[in-house]
Amino acid sequence: MGSESDLPVMEETLRILDSFGVPYEVRILSAHRSPHETSAYARDCMGRGIKVLIAGAGWAAHLAGVVAAETTLPVIGVPVDSSPLKGMDSLLSTVQMPPGIPVATMAIGRGGALNAAIFALQILATSKPDLQQKLVDYKKGMAADVIQRKNRNLEEYLLNRKTGASAS
Amino acid sequence: MGSESDLPVMEETLRILDSFGVPYEVRILSAHRSPHETSAYARDCMGRGIKVLIAGAGWAAHLAGVVAAETTLPVIGVPVDSSPLKGMDSLLSTVQMPPGIPVATMAIGRGGALNAAIFALQILATSKPDLQQKLVDYKKGMAADVIQRKNRNLEEYLLNRKTGASAS
Amino acid sequence: MGSESDLPVMEETLRILDSFGVPYEVRILSAHRSPHETSAYARDCMGRGIKVLIAGAGWAAHLAGVVAAETTLPVIGVPVDSSPLKGMDSLLSTVQMPPGIPVATMAIGRGGALNAAIFALQILATSKPDLQQKLVDYKKGMAADVIQRKNRNLEEYLLNRKTGASAS
Amino acid sequence: MGSESDLPVMEETLRILDSFGVPYEVRILSAHRSPHETSAYARDCMGRGIKVLIAGAGWAAHLAGVVAAETTLPVIGVPVDSSPLKGMDSLLSTVQMPPGIPVATMAIGRGGALNAAIFALQILATSKPDLQQKLVDYKKGMAADVIQRKNRNLEEYLLNRKTGASAS
Amino acid sequence: MGSESDLPVMEETLRILDSFGVPYEVRILSAHRSPHETSAYARDCMGRGIKVLIAGAGWAAHLAGVVAAETTLPVIGVPVDSSPLKGMDSLLSTVQMPPGIPVATMAIGRGGALNAAIFALQILATSKPDLQQKLVDYKKGMAADVIQRKNRNLEEYLLNRKTGASAS
Amino acid sequence: MGSESDLPVMEETLRILDSFGVPYEVRILSAHRSPHETSAYARDCMGRGIKVLIAGAGWAAHLAGVVAAETTLPVIGVPVDSSPLKGMDSLLSTVQMPPGIPVATMAIGRGGALNAAIFALQILATSKPDLQQKLVDYKKGMAADVIQRKNRNLEEYLLNRKTGASAS
Amino acid sequence: MGSESDLPVMEETLRILDSFGVPYEVRILSAHRSPHETSAYARDCMGRGIKVLIAGAGWAAHLAGVVAAETTLPVIGVPVDSSPLKGMDSLLSTVQMPPGIPVATMAIGRGGALNAAIFALQILATSKPDLQQKLVDYKKGMAADVIQRKNRNLEEYLLNRKTGASAS
Amino acid sequence: MGSESDLPVMEETLRILDSFGVPYEVRILSAHRSPHETSAYARDCMGRGIKVLIAGAGWAAHLAGVVAAETTLPVIGVPVDSSPLKGMDSLLSTVQMPPGIPVATMAIGRGGALNAAIFALQILATSKPDLQQKLVDYKKGMAADVIQRKNRNLEEYLLNRKTGASAS
Repeated sequence: MGSESDLPVMEETLRILDSFGVPYEVRILSAHRSPHETSAYARDCMGRGIKVLIAGAGWAAHLAGVVAAETTLPVIGVPVDSSPLKGMDSLLSTVQMPPGIPVATMAIGRGGALNAAIFALQILATSKPDLQQKLVDYKKGMAADVIQRKNRNLEEYLLNRKTGASAS
Repeated sequence: MGSESDLPVMEETLRILDSFGVPYEVRILSAHRSPHETSAYARDCMGRGIKVLIAGAGWAAHLAGVVAAETTLPVIGVPVDSSPLKGMDSLLSTVQMPPGIPVATMAIGRGGALNAAIFALQILATSKPDLQQKLVDYKKGMAADVIQRKNRNLEEYLLNRKTGASAS
Repeated sequence: MGSESDLPVMEETLRILDSFGVPYEVRILSAHRSPHETSAYARDCMGRGIKVLIAGAGWAAHLAGVVAAETTLPVIGVPVDSSPLKGMDSLLSTVQMPPGIPVATMAIGRGGALNAAIFALQILATSKPDLQQKLVDYKKGMAADVIQRKNRNLEEYLLNRKTGASAS
Repeated sequence: MGSESDLPVMEETLRILDSFGVPYEVRILSAHRSPHETSAYARDCMGRGIKVLIAGAGWAAHLAGVVAAETTLPVIGVPVDSSPLKGMDSLLSTVQMPPGIPVATMAIGRGGALNAAIFALQILATSKPDLQQKLVDYKKGMAADVIQRKNRNLEEYLLNRKTGASAS
Repeated sequence: MGSESDLPVMEETLRILDSFGVPYEVRILSAHRSPHETSAYARDCMGRGIKVLIAGAGWAAHLAGVVAAETTLPVIGVPVDSSPLKGMDSLLSTVQMPPGIPVATMAIGRGGALNAAIFALQILATSKPDLQQKLVDYKKGMAADVIQRKNRNLEEYLLNRKTGASAS
Repeated sequence: MGSESDLPVMEETLRILDSFGVPYEVRILSAHRSPHETSAYARDCMGRGIKVLIAGAGWAAHLAGVVAAETTLPVIGVPVDSSPLKGMDSLLSTVQMPPGIPVATMAIGRGGALNAAIFALQILATSKPDLQQKLVDYKKGMAADVIQRKNRNLEEYLLNRKTGASAS
Repeated sequence: MGSESDLPVMEETLRILDSFGVPYEVRILSAHRSPHETSAYARDCMGRGIKVLIAGAGWAAHLAGVVAAETTLPVIGVPVDSSPLKGMDSLLSTVQMPPGIPVATMAIGRGGALNAAIFALQILATSKPDLQQKLVDYKKGMAADVIQRKNRNLEEYLLNRKTGASAS
Repeated sequence: MGSESDLPVMEETLRILDSFGVPYEVRILSAHRSPHETSAYARDCMGRGIKVLIAGAGWAAHLAGVVAAETTLPVIGVPVDSSPLKGMDSLLSTVQMPPGIPVATMAIGRGGALNAAIFALQILATSKPDLQQKLVDYKKGMAADVIQRKNRNLEEYLLNRKTGASAS
């Protein structure tokens, strides 16, 4: 991630990777304040067996692009909404990459950080059938959660609403 | 792709995949006009051995999201700039996905279509060393093209400029 | 609605429908997390005698579009302002539908949820004279409320203001 | 419609209504240049047996709102992209209606005009089974057109592409 | 103003008019909820000797435009920032008027409400030399306030800053 | 106006003022390139009997604000759409004036230039009954033009449409 | 700066200049409320040996442009995010200057105010080798801070996270 | 500049530097396609006696930021309007730099490229009195051009207009 202040957003990525038991490493690497370390880190990743890179940054978010310039590994970008423009600046800085150097851009903020982890897992799963199965189960779990738990909560709410209305 | 009119943008994807010799199939599948075919196609991809999906669409571009809802394969989205809002609508409709269902969003338009192909290749290359090498070569070729050919053209332009200036 | 978190917005819809005594049912149906249930629900509505559908969702709000793809019943969309972009993303994702599959889009947030109910009633009222009359009365009530109660409050405010000013 | 210059957009509405054989009338009624005629027209519609109103306008598009203020009939708004801001102004002026006075807003431009007609038909069809059937058929036709004709064209294109590539 | 909720913004207008001793009247008149009263009020203003109209409204702010449609008196519009889009919707709905029906649009929010009063006074002052003089004095007062009081505060701040820095 | 290139927009202002027979003068005065002449011109206007100022400019359009800083005469601003941002930059630079220094902002481009003239006439008319009458007549003419001529054209179009349709 | 209310943003500029021991002066100078003092101050700067000007302002931020119109010294603009549009208005008003009169625009808000100081120092350092060395050291310090302190904090966080997870 | 396609915009920079007789060098250096050459070039500039850097790029324009990360020389950024978003993406990517690494951002497109040259000259002129004098003369020339030539053209236009009007 580009700055310490991105951690409250990017910890969603860690949470998901932990829950899938997939190992990772985390660094604060600024495209602008520590450019050599950032470039070197991105360049060396492939040799060290790393498979996917996730870059989260705010404002004029160049981190994902600078990392993508140094490697042919897939790079996933998370626009962080830390500026007054609410992440529109980091979204456009991350997604509008020139031909030849893609950055796979996720939604702005915490939801995007969560999805960056899921998408990284989906990439890894293209060659790991057991991880693919875990993703299929996770997806089923989400559906079940919506279909059952959430709609049960909703029914309760609607019941309370009706009772409340008739009681008042 | 969501519509026949997306073809002039999405052919950039085909061009790159052809040049890397990676097989693919192409369909017009509308999230809104042919929803069942779209869902069924997305659902069946994994069983047919497809590894990555690319969805290009304009306006309220739901295609990539609808496809991502049906599979745990990586889905790449290309916002097409066919509406009066110049693709801002398709960008936001594609990238702002809810937690759990990522779409890897590329730049708006033809450059994004080209990058969707490169990013798909980068995913495949995580388990195919020979493809990885081709991508490394492609990247070196891009660098060389900028460093040599483009700067030679520039020098020529600058020379003509100087001569033209002194001649006039 | 697409998520539990849309309920504080969408309860405005319920409040209005309750006050007009029009029966309804409520579901959490995610275009992305529970796509089959969502499609099946939308597809079966007409057969079950449902007349109008209202879909509220935030971020890349595909719900209304996905529902509209499955039915020829009128679908009303409410963009919810839950993302950092304050509903501009859900507005464009809801309103910019392709030719052939309309979504009747309302204002962003609670006001839009209220209006979704009114608009649904207006649709129903095209074939129910008594409901039409209720809507006419509701509209007269709104006018009277502005003309009388609100302007009386204003006059009081102005009077206090003047007295306050002369007293200070 | 608000102005003569909206006709090239709004004729899409007429084309669809004609093809479904549903009678309509068309007026140029400006919220700002002919306010009394506009209000009177909107007010008298219900008494004349009109069921749905469609209002297309550009710039600060007040027409749909002004019409909706005068009637409890459903009002559909089409934002026209005639200003330098490409319809973002007319979209926001049409969709962001205050609580109590909904305008069912369609996409910007010709696609929105087409959808306004479809949506009007969907409203009428809630009490006309034969029109409902026509809409179901229209929807099936769209799906078939995508699934068959468009994908056949695509296959041809792909074939030509391959042949062209091998020939060159 | 279009709604009771606009009062905290529009009271800036009243404050300035009071301070210049210029008489005024205030009404809540909704373009959408009480259209006839709004039109009638606007139409009758000129006959009652009113010289300038100020309309403040939020969301799809049609009030100023609807008032301007009914009179040839100068109409000043104040976009109120009450929606999630922070007044961008009310700004565009107010300022993008069609040819022939101008609305003199002020800044979004309280500053715009204050300026609406100043601008109304500037209009009146074109034929009232004594009011013109008061405006000239007000302008001089603003300049003096910036030049003297505010820069004195700033100097104090800078002094404290220096002392604080050396003390710490 | 701020630049020669604003003339194709601002000539709409001249056309209206000519048609009302109201005398005016025109200058190219740049807030940035000729600041002293601009300030001096604005400052001297009141003494020379000028009643209203109209300023048209594009990009970071400071002209209206700089003029308003120098005078208590009413200043009307016309944002010109000469930049890649299509006048959004000039609109915000013109309308978002700080408290105390209003600029009456019109729509972007030629329509705004036309309206600047109408609004200037409306200001002058507050103390000139004959001009007021001309404005009332102009407004009636606009209404008549919409009601009669434009709707006659429309009827013709509809007739041709029907005939064309039955002939084909 | 254009107003007292810009001080909480612009004090970042002072903090950096203080830490580099570079002398400066601070004024509140409004482009609109005290135009003559602002113009005179800008005009006289060069004669008084001032080398760089920094202008911070919000809303329709004309200050930097008005200052740049009066001098050939480099002018740096800081858009302040004080309006409902979150500084998009001040950014466009500051950056979109016409040909011939540049304003070097920084990021919106406090980060931009800090950078205005750094950029001013970079300008001064083009002819002051000792200041250049200080800037090089400052840059190294930033890199070291990211590389060491921040990543140490991050490691601690990750360790706590793991322990916390295993403890729970 | 980041790409060959930026040349039609960036040649404005060259034109101005040529006309002031200030030497320069031009390179195509892509932040993403040739990152090492770009970094190395930026890093070595100071040692080679270069005083100011100008970077023009479109889309997610990282070039200026990447260059600024490598040097303490002043870096000027020109957002190029080559994408469907008309330069809003390159503007935000260039201007919203994080604290510590400023980029002096100019207007979007050719005007910004021209201003980049002027601003570079203003930086150089802080230690070169003869260049300062040339800039003062250039500024006087711009003022004279507006005051004399442009207003003469305008007068001619107005005269033709009047004659044309009376002749018709």
